[in-house]
Amino acid sequence: MVSQAEVKLWAEVHEQKGFSLQNMKQRLKRLSIETPSWGYGDAGTRFKVFKQKGVPRDPFEKLEDAAQVHRVTGVCSKVAIHIPWDKVANYTELKTHAQGLGLEIGAVNPNLFQEEEYALGSLCNSNLEVRQRAVAHVLECVDIMGQVDSKVLSLWLADGTNYPGQDSFRRRKRYLEEALSEIYPHLPVNARLLIEYKGFEPAFYHTDLADWGMAYNHAVKLGAQAQVLVDLGHHPLGTNVAYIVASLLDEGKLGGFHFNNRKYADDDLMVGSIDPYELFLIANELVEGENDESTAACARNVSYMIDQSHNIERKIPAMIRSVMTIQTAFAKALLVPQAALRKVQEAGDVIGAELLMKEAFETDVRPFLALIREEMGLEPDPLKAYLNGPYPNTIAQRGTHGQGW
Amino acid sequence: MVSQAEVKLWAEVHEQKGFSLQNMKQRLKRLSIETPSWGYGDAGTRFKVFKQKGVPRDPFEKLEDAAQVHRVTGVCSKVAIHIPWDKVANYTELKTHAQGLGLEIGAVNPNLFQEEEYALGSLCNSNLEVRQRAVAHVLECVDIMGQVDSKVLSLWLADGTNYPGQDSFRRRKRYLEEALSEIYPHLPVNARLLIEYKGFEPAFYHTDLADWGMAYNHAVKLGAQAQVLVDLGHHPLGTNVAYIVASLLDEGKLGGFHFNNRKYADDDLMVGSIDPYELFLIANELVEGENDESTAACARNVSYMIDQSHNIERKIPAMIRSVMTIQTAFAKALLVPQAALRKVQEAGDVIGAELLMKEAFETDVRPFLALIREEMGLEPDPLKAYLNGPYPNTIAQRGTHGQGW
Amino acid sequence: MVSQAEVKLWAEVHEQKGFSLQNMKQRLKRLSIETPSWGYGDAGTRFKVFKQKGVPRDPFEKLEDAAQVHRVTGVCSKVAIHIPWDKVANYTELKTHAQGLGLEIGAVNPNLFQEEEYALGSLCNSNLEVRQRAVAHVLECVDIMGQVDSKVLSLWLADGTNYPGQDSFRRRKRYLEEALSEIYPHLPVNARLLIEYKGFEPAFYHTDLADWGMAYNHAVKLGAQAQVLVDLGHHPLGTNVAYIVASLLDEGKLGGFHFNNRKYADDDLMVGSIDPYELFLIANELVEGENDESTAACARNVSYMIDQSHNIERKIPAMIRSVMTIQTAFAKALLVPQAALRKVQEAGDVIGAELLMKEAFETDVRPFLALIREEMGLEPDPLKAYLNGPYPNTIAQRGTHGQGW
Amino acid sequence: MVSQAEVKLWAEVHEQKGFSLQNMKQRLKRLSIETPSWGYGDAGTRFKVFKQKGVPRDPFEKLEDAAQVHRVTGVCSKVAIHIPWDKVANYTELKTHAQGLGLEIGAVNPNLFQEEEYALGSLCNSNLEVRQRAVAHVLECVDIMGQVDSKVLSLWLADGTNYPGQDSFRRRKRYLEEALSEIYPHLPVNARLLIEYKGFEPAFYHTDLADWGMAYNHAVKLGAQAQVLVDLGHHPLGTNVAYIVASLLDEGKLGGFHFNNRKYADDDLMVGSIDPYELFLIANELVEGENDESTAACARNVSYMIDQSHNIERKIPAMIRSVMTIQTAFAKALLVPQAALRKVQEAGDVIGAELLMKEAFETDVRPFLALIREEMGLEPDPLKAYLNGPYPNTIAQRGTHGQGW
Repeated sequence: MVSQAEVKLWAEVHEQKGFSLQNMKQRLKRLSIETPSWGYGDAGTRFKVFKQKGVPRDPFEKLEDAAQVHRVTGVCSKVAIHIPWDKVANYTELKTHAQGLGLEIGAVNPNLFQEEEYALGSLCNSNLEVRQRAVAHVLECVDIMGQVDSKVLSLWLADGTNYPGQDSFRRRKRYLEEALSEIYPHLPVNARLLIEYKGFEPAFYHTDLADWGMAYNHAVKLGAQAQVLVDLGHHPLGTNVAYIVASLLDEGKLGGFHFNNRKYADDDLMVGSIDPYELFLIANELVEGENDESTAACARNVSYMIDQSHNIERKIPAMIRSVMTIQTAFAKALLVPQAALRKVQEAGDVIGAELLMKEAFETDVRPFLALIREEMGLEPDPLKAYLNGPYPNTIAQRGTHGQGW
Repeated sequence: MVSQAEVKLWAEVHEQKGFSLQNMKQRLKRLSIETPSWGYGDAGTRFKVFKQKGVPRDPFEKLEDAAQVHRVTGVCSKVAIHIPWDKVANYTELKTHAQGLGLEIGAVNPNLFQEEEYALGSLCNSNLEVRQRAVAHVLECVDIMGQVDSKVLSLWLADGTNYPGQDSFRRRKRYLEEALSEIYPHLPVNARLLIEYKGFEPAFYHTDLADWGMAYNHAVKLGAQAQVLVDLGHHPLGTNVAYIVASLLDEGKLGGFHFNNRKYADDDLMVGSIDPYELFLIANELVEGENDESTAACARNVSYMIDQSHNIERKIPAMIRSVMTIQTAFAKALLVPQAALRKVQEAGDVIGAELLMKEAFETDVRPFLALIREEMGLEPDPLKAYLNGPYPNTIAQRGTHGQGW
Repeated sequence: MVSQAEVKLWAEVHEQKGFSLQNMKQRLKRLSIETPSWGYGDAGTRFKVFKQKGVPRDPFEKLEDAAQVHRVTGVCSKVAIHIPWDKVANYTELKTHAQGLGLEIGAVNPNLFQEEEYALGSLCNSNLEVRQRAVAHVLECVDIMGQVDSKVLSLWLADGTNYPGQDSFRRRKRYLEEALSEIYPHLPVNARLLIEYKGFEPAFYHTDLADWGMAYNHAVKLGAQAQVLVDLGHHPLGTNVAYIVASLLDEGKLGGFHFNNRKYADDDLMVGSIDPYELFLIANELVEGENDESTAACARNVSYMIDQSHNIERKIPAMIRSVMTIQTAFAKALLVPQAALRKVQEAGDVIGAELLMKEAFETDVRPFLALIREEMGLEPDPLKAYLNGPYPNTIAQRGTHGQGW
Repeated sequence: MVSQAEVKLWAEVHEQKGFSLQNMKQRLKRLSIETPSWGYGDAGTRFKVFKQKGVPRDPFEKLEDAAQVHRVTGVCSKVAIHIPWDKVANYTELKTHAQGLGLEIGAVNPNLFQEEEYALGSLCNSNLEVRQRAVAHVLECVDIMGQVDSKVLSLWLADGTNYPGQDSFRRRKRYLEEALSEIYPHLPVNARLLIEYKGFEPAFYHTDLADWGMAYNHAVKLGAQAQVLVDLGHHPLGTNVAYIVASLLDEGKLGGFHFNNRKYADDDLMVGSIDPYELFLIANELVEGENDESTAACARNVSYMIDQSHNIERKIPAMIRSVMTIQTAFAKALLVPQAALRKVQEAGDVIGAELLMKEAFETDVRPFLALIREEMGLEPDPLKAYLNGPYPNTIAQRGTHGQGW
């Protein structure tokens, strides 16, 4: 636990270094992080979904769990939903339930991979009827957006092939273009379509939206309401994700994130659990983008969403940890001295530049985050606040009847 | 379809080149390929298991499907089983059913990843009771080996951790050593324990048997009855699998294969569907190993097993295709002129050596395989033989009630 | 050596299967493959450049070696040059020398990575003077294009950073955009700017043109004369290159290839030496693209260039082998039955589709290529034709004074 | 710059948490880090070696630069040498020069990759004479070890092939075994042979010592004086290096490290510049290994060596930064509460375990390191101490005549 003396000294030292704690606090307090309803349910690998006690049995209970994360972090009022996993008879009721918990519905995620018809694809299926059905499902989600006041349609497409020759790359590309341009005009005013990409899985030869370039290309063709969603686990090993983030930002096409971490493939581990420095470097691009006039509008509108698969860990604590880790990364990114950095960059001082990044990263920001939380009326340690509360026991009585995906 | 003229010319040309067609035929006729019972069931990814019509509903029906593969290929009399997926009340009955179909039971595979207790590991679990339970399950499988006359215990361990710090690497390593040395003495005489390794999945931070070096180290400590099993999809991208195969062979520790193919991770696609040249190069090591006195005993005893996950393709045809592809690779490997190759190698003729490999690979061996099949009393094209037969229709009536894994 | 009987039977069998040998021959005869001048020089790794005997000592001798490759293959009349490696006092003289050898100059490649000033970048350097110098060098190359009648400016940019923070991603992106738009208007009429991309090396944190999406984005902004160049070794492992090729083709932005092969990184090995099936699948996209009205214009204009680093192998033979391998891949791609393939694709017959691809690939096309070469007045085996000729001995007298890069 | 108040508070807080600062200080003060002579010379990629001003012109000047690193860090008295890069007429003179600078010679590294004869391999070359020459060179290095009082022979083998078929895997494996067993008996008493492995580069198809399993296997066969050297950049992406470290430690076969960092391949960047968390996790294994009786002897004898390629950064500062980063990682590893960690591990508390690791990692250890340095009579910030001293200017007069590798 961070002591008052540590908090005080931290503030002194950093004010002396010329940082505006006021600005940093403001920025961190409005760093809204959306959690996904499915992150509260049971999840697993193809080998096994381990059932945990206390997992929510329906969308309403998922919102209740999400409300716990918001209660202790203060920045997680938004919850993404997934249709049909969160299908309910009455979406107004779902919205009202959310509001009663101090929450709002965030992104709406269509599911285009779990119907038997989608075995060979959905929007890219060579069968016209399947494509139409898939488009209809997405439009159903657009309709739900209206009912729950969502401003984000978050599209992940599992479509692809498993074998060379299985289908025509270019024909599928055109089917996708067709489907997207059918969907796009239906978006509510001010709403955005976020197009996600992924290198592989569940398709193992090619994936129709395989990389940022493909998602970007579609988004550009569609128009200003279409942007790209970056899931941190969806790149080949040996990809500089921070640079992709910067590139999309520079084009005004960075729409949102699915935060998580991985060591190998799309492992969907807790944020920053494997490579916290990469997370910091990504946060640095976002902070820098917010401070640059030419990218500020885009940067400030980016949706920060968590997308994890809690195979063996307790779901609510895992979510809280990830929120804390994102805050840690951003707090450190706010400590990168942009002007000084630019100076060493322009002087070609490689060692000096690397050092400035590391000095920000090495800084322990826990005292500062404790201070911010205190100002927000929160406990300084959200995880302890949750674990010491009654909720973990309360939900145990749900038994092991949780909804999985 | 290959014509008689093609077959005749092929034989002429290759006899003229000095190949002993007789030896090659013999070798290919005794190239026994074991298929896995679970390869006939429904399979999928964490996102979805698509249900197919006609999938076997129990272990007996799986054997019936396997018998079809043997019927058209003539080399697939062995079927691996997986406990408890293939758990039956009476294993003698299972064995008799197999024999009635012209089959025999091959490897017995324990399942150490689907009990709720195994969420944090089985043989490496920090909980003693779980480890004991896991050992007991393996010993149950050893017992089944006796009942079904199996000579191979095939051990794949899903154990690992998802997060840094989750458990102690070295403590787990010792638990595993302990468990294996408890199991090993129970092996039937002449039976082998094949230890499989895998880089990741379902564990996403570390896997207790992560690479060939770890499996090999355990096998060496255990003794002569323990060997290593190479699954072609279980290596990091950027691994020379053929060299690992050669190394294990040279140490007398290559025990068996799980043949399949992948482009990304453990994709479990049909054999040779992504990289047929790599398969040929692996076959080349085996052929060469059989011809070298110092490795022949080990090489000739290697178990050739298929392990695939047929997510979207028809299962029996997929298995037949893979058998054909393995035969193709070995037929081509038999065409590598070993003596000539050694000569250019020792002359440092890089281009010449590469060319000899490619000339063998470029050779179309379909006429030769057709000839061999004819001599074996089979149709020249096993896939067509299966598809044109009544079986595909017959099994349709099973409906979509198949056993999955 | 392929016999007449084999050639005859091959033709009969494939005519019977309905292939138009006439069309296939035509296509293969006009499959022009450009070789790079630097491929004839000494090359190596950072650890060592091994010097070979007989390596050309100047650009004129490189052309003479290239002429040998053309002499035996009949399809390699174009030679790419690299400035300043091929800097000469008088480019008209170089062009005349080429013409006298039956050659023409292909792409002109600027060198933006070997001046001391480029240590931290060229077109993306934070120093304005360095950027201007780099632009000036590219414009010098544009000027040379005019002198040697080249229609392709081939731009590979080694620019990048080695450390997080070393420079600003977005500022560099804008410098690049600026530089390219300064260069673009100077392109000769009908000439193209091909923009190459590469994931890493020599930069090890980020590369300014890191992937196809970035190259494509720049090309789109520049206009119709700018296209993307795909070097087969410039992708992260776990990338479906054939799909990138198809995507670029579909957008009319596929400009050219640097053919080579790799197992790990940018290994620059001989074409198809590691993964010949991938090469075939790429060829298949090109063949299909040529047959589709909407992409034919782009597909037919693609520049096929070899880019290899012959570290340990004889350079001229290596080049001949690669040309043969590209021809092999295209010949096989021409055997993919497009109409039948589409039918099984639309029927969702995964196994059937995979089979059609493999049947084309398994076909031994050496008899057909021998036939074509005979019709072109060439020896059936270009490598033997070269090795048995006097040239290998002739050049030995050059000693080990070769130009390297 | 760290303030006295920060140092004081840090000590208070961590004493209160129960850490023995005394023990931690002792451990960190004796954390000896060996720097490589070649790290002070010019280095680069295959594309370019950029020449820097002030680079040492001979082995003696390299030692002088190394002495600067030792002067400001206090822990870098050992310097590895590389033969023939550091070949001198009189090794006693070299040793004396080192001693005069407060240094000693560390590992001796043979060079088996830069003679023309080694184009196709050294110890694994199919030519007996080349193998003998290579063995003789290694024995020459053993002899030098005696002259310079080195206790470590550090063997990196670049041997491998670039193409399938180029040479026989198993024959080469046996040549290597033969060569090593010829060399091993010549090792001085108490000296160790450290066998390094590497996945690829400069060989691009297979490398004879490709992974830890191969190096380990050779080391086991040789005997107790042979151990494995882990270079952090020599693994395929998607490898858990910390687990390999733990495994080798557990077998008593971990001999040493080549510290550096990479994002893609063997990038040889500054330590911890890309993934500081991985470095911390590796340090954690070493700290834990030292505290465990069964591994302590091995762990305490591990050689910590830096091996970097300073392509664009100033060499001495880069070395100092890396030393600081290693100290940072170890200081944090010493803050992992081993007993508490074991408790949560055995309780299966995944979140709790991950948290304990991260809490240690998030701790800012700069105050503690400043304290330690003060006690050692050093400046608190070694990099500033170096940069503000006269040495950078002094060496500028060497000009750009530096020795490269």
